[in-house]
Amino acid sequence: MDSSNGRLQQPTKRLTETDAWQALGERHAVLAATSLNQLFADDPRRFERMSLSAGGLVLDYSKNRLDGTTLSLLTALAAERGVDTARDAMFAGRPINNTERRAVLHTALRQSAGVRHDANGVDVMPDVLAVRARMLDFAEAVRDGRWTGHAGDAITDVVNIGIGGSDLGPCMACEALAGRRRGRLTIHFVSNVDGEQLAAVLDRVEARRTLFVVASKTFTTLETMTNAASARAWFLAHGGQAADIAKHFVAVSSNAARVREFGIDEANMFGFWDWVGGRYSMWSSVGLPIALAIGAEGFRALLDGAARMDRHFVEAPLAANMPVILASIGLWYRAFFGTASVCVVPYAQALARLPAYLQQLEMESNGKSVSCDGRQVGVATCPVVWGEPGTNAQHSFFQLLHQGSDPIPVDFIMPLEVGHGLPGHQRLLLANCIAQSKALMVGKSEAEVRAELSTAGLAGEALELLVPHRVFAGNRPSNTLVLPDLSPASLGALIALYEHKVFVQGVLWGVNSFDQWGVELGKQLAGRIAAELDGGAVGPHDASTRGLLDLARSGLARASSRGAS
Amino acid sequence: MDSSNGRLQQPTKRLTETDAWQALGERHAVLAATSLNQLFADDPRRFERMSLSAGGLVLDYSKNRLDGTTLSLLTALAAERGVDTARDAMFAGRPINNTERRAVLHTALRQSAGVRHDANGVDVMPDVLAVRARMLDFAEAVRDGRWTGHAGDAITDVVNIGIGGSDLGPCMACEALAGRRRGRLTIHFVSNVDGEQLAAVLDRVEARRTLFVVASKTFTTLETMTNAASARAWFLAHGGQAADIAKHFVAVSSNAARVREFGIDEANMFGFWDWVGGRYSMWSSVGLPIALAIGAEGFRALLDGAARMDRHFVEAPLAANMPVILASIGLWYRAFFGTASVCVVPYAQALARLPAYLQQLEMESNGKSVSCDGRQVGVATCPVVWGEPGTNAQHSFFQLLHQGSDPIPVDFIMPLEVGHGLPGHQRLLLANCIAQSKALMVGKSEAEVRAELSTAGLAGEALELLVPHRVFAGNRPSNTLVLPDLSPASLGALIALYEHKVFVQGVLWGVNSFDQWGVELGKQLAGRIAAELDGGAVGPHDASTRGLLDLARSGLARASSRGAS
Repeated sequence: MDSSNGRLQQPTKRLTETDAWQALGERHAVLAATSLNQLFADDPRRFERMSLSAGGLVLDYSKNRLDGTTLSLLTALAAERGVDTARDAMFAGRPINNTERRAVLHTALRQSAGVRHDANGVDVMPDVLAVRARMLDFAEAVRDGRWTGHAGDAITDVVNIGIGGSDLGPCMACEALAGRRRGRLTIHFVSNVDGEQLAAVLDRVEARRTLFVVASKTFTTLETMTNAASARAWFLAHGGQAADIAKHFVAVSSNAARVREFGIDEANMFGFWDWVGGRYSMWSSVGLPIALAIGAEGFRALLDGAARMDRHFVEAPLAANMPVILASIGLWYRAFFGTASVCVVPYAQALARLPAYLQQLEMESNGKSVSCDGRQVGVATCPVVWGEPGTNAQHSFFQLLHQGSDPIPVDFIMPLEVGHGLPGHQRLLLANCIAQSKALMVGKSEAEVRAELSTAGLAGEALELLVPHRVFAGNRPSNTLVLPDLSPASLGALIALYEHKVFVQGVLWGVNSFDQWGVELGKQLAGRIAAELDGGAVGPHDASTRGLLDLARSGLARASSRGAS
Repeated sequence: MDSSNGRLQQPTKRLTETDAWQALGERHAVLAATSLNQLFADDPRRFERMSLSAGGLVLDYSKNRLDGTTLSLLTALAAERGVDTARDAMFAGRPINNTERRAVLHTALRQSAGVRHDANGVDVMPDVLAVRARMLDFAEAVRDGRWTGHAGDAITDVVNIGIGGSDLGPCMACEALAGRRRGRLTIHFVSNVDGEQLAAVLDRVEARRTLFVVASKTFTTLETMTNAASARAWFLAHGGQAADIAKHFVAVSSNAARVREFGIDEANMFGFWDWVGGRYSMWSSVGLPIALAIGAEGFRALLDGAARMDRHFVEAPLAANMPVILASIGLWYRAFFGTASVCVVPYAQALARLPAYLQQLEMESNGKSVSCDGRQVGVATCPVVWGEPGTNAQHSFFQLLHQGSDPIPVDFIMPLEVGHGLPGHQRLLLANCIAQSKALMVGKSEAEVRAELSTAGLAGEALELLVPHRVFAGNRPSNTLVLPDLSPASLGALIALYEHKVFVQGVLWGVNSFDQWGVELGKQLAGRIAAELDGGAVGPHDASTRGLLDLARSGLARASSRGAS
């Protein structure tokens, strides 16, 4: 660590120059010629060897195109890249976010009283615990009706106004945990600057019973402040007075001056810190909607579940470390099989927004091609993350997973126990999840297809026509993550697992997973173009931008001439 | 056309052996060394040359890494592959779905009285018009309260039970068109066999005011029939008698016997035909929830919008044909730039489910590696389609689009006029959409970054640390599709455009876009595994499947022991 500029000491070798990388390339040549079916036939204990438990979760990674030698090499690579040192530096609060010279301590947000977590030598826990207590007290007061609107009504609707990390985490977690159990409160999420989203929510709520949570660290985020201003105007037009704003708007922010200026009581501002990035912030005050939905006890269980995974990540040796294994397998496919995406399929409708959450977590963290030391990484980094819940996805894009031209690794996520009482459903759901990973792996040979079609009475040209279309190449890899249930603790462990997977991949590739400079250019240009759409002088642009600006201006003019926005 | 077995006459050459393919490969070498900025500098009229209108939509495809020569070669490839002949065969009702020996006539569903559309020589239009009229009459009766529940109440909630094509299209369209305008009726969608989804809806509705639409062509789809059975049981447990089922359940199906058996009056069964595939069926009775949400007039406008795009597709020359251009550009990147996915970003929150809809449309249609004639295609076919609405996506995965290791082509979708009255929002939304495609293209050079940081007062090591992280390579391509609004007509044209794009790509690759044999193996295995989870004898399995089965059985046993499902 060069403490003068906060840079982590980089491994001196490039990733592709490490000993393990070279050996992995050679191993790939062997594995590329071997089938998963063969690997299972060769080793009756493959499942025991290639599955492990942590934080209440079971990861089955046996259906991957690798063997024991590959895993040893991947562990060696992790060691050679200093994954353990980097992990310890993160937990120790060293400024591993080197371009912003910040510590990275979202793990501290999961801790209870009695531990110490330093950022630049200062223990952050007293602050963390104080803000958490205040936030959870507030949530409970709203939940049990002690907190009322300006006319004395209990709150029935909460509108969270935030975007990115101030939206995706709380929204995903509320849907996962509180779909049917959120009690009296309905939690709405408004994120997009597209006014349709806010307008649709405002149509459905009553001002006197609605609480707005405005979540923006700086209180300057364009979308959030635009929506918050419109929400405030609506509130004032629907019976609220300026003095009532403090009863209906609270802030998740660090900018006290702007929060006060908005009309929010600083006592109802819940802060966070520069050592927690937006996409790692659902454990902080940003999680207020989660606490409102599931209560303080549920929120603490969510933190505890994540903390369990944190302990596993810190304590388990690299070779038996769930985040390290997931990360290494991802790198193995990306680097040596040339896969460009990972498909995440939760077999739980309540996890419908998990892929969207992981898109930000993974792609904003590691969607970079320059390493911490400023050099080009030189190999493919973060893949595209995408997915939809099963079984729905089976009726949508699974055709491509099974018979498309490119194998795509899949993460199946399978919670076992559910809370609803409808008989039969869960058995079918689990059966489908297990069947799909098996089908992707085993495939169906031409001989099997011929036999099946013959049995069905086909022959001759009718049979020949169908055979090639009903063959499955198989040999398509997947992980299966088994959760005991969709409790707060299980969800906490699951999200922490992916966070640490992302961290490990960042270390392997050598990128800083905690900055996001790639979002700046679009913001700058949007500011200029918004002014031009407003009637400002149009600067020099390429012909496409000029053409699109003309179309947009004429659309806005048409809307304005008929009195719309 | 060999009419004896329904196979389309295949072009005798393989795709890679065509003249145009070879020439495109050579052209790629030139274009790969040229920047988009340079292409715009070279041709002041590039936007006019590379944008066109059709069906009320404007496509700007000028920000792509191609030039006039490339476009001519792509047109030549489309001609050489027989895109126009194949298109005409589809519209003529010839059995172009060769493995199932079926015509493909979803375009007939968009037609009005007075035209003829033959499938195997029989005009389908009388049937199409009769079913449509009956379906729209029913929708209007429910909407205006003439249709009542068993106790005489008007219907307030509609629950569509369907999956895949019987879910994604209606759900996407209802969200796009009816979010704030669906009036008295709330439309719910239940698709997943995961009982949490149905249970959550049943918690929110009243049996006496709820209409269930059960959508399954065969009335045997596992998920749909499981959910329908649970819904019927719930209805009977909440005040309904067996004789009342006909007032609360209707069917979108072709299986009259099973529909009657379920308790549904055959008069309330809305059929469709074997020449319309699930993922092309929102224009048929499958669109009943759309008609319930937006009314008969709105539904007809949706059909008319699609029909306008159909006419364009049929009439425009290949070189000025919007679906052909979109398809050809997609193939260009996939084949020659090696891109593995396409990102779709609608700048409209109401189009949040468009990417999920397109995932089925594109990936189930063309996620294949065997061509119609049974040979391996030999090149990469359908890419992964994924995306989220802007501006949200800017705060999530756009980091990777801008600075990730692999350029990913983007389709920006930009509706101009909106219905809400919130001032200022739409201008910011449009500005962001235009800014993002520009930022992806123009990038930011090291010199620009240095100048900007110097102006901001940085120097020395602090400046050097940041420079490489704030550079944007640029040269990242996109299309922008401009819609005048999010009306039914605009949405109809948009969806028909993508349908035809998918068709053209299928013809270029030589695959049958209308079958889906890749979903069969998983279904077969799921049936066996469900029986095993039920306590049946466990067959021979790989160790992973056995391990997962054990976990699932223990989870189900725990749930059962505490009386849950």
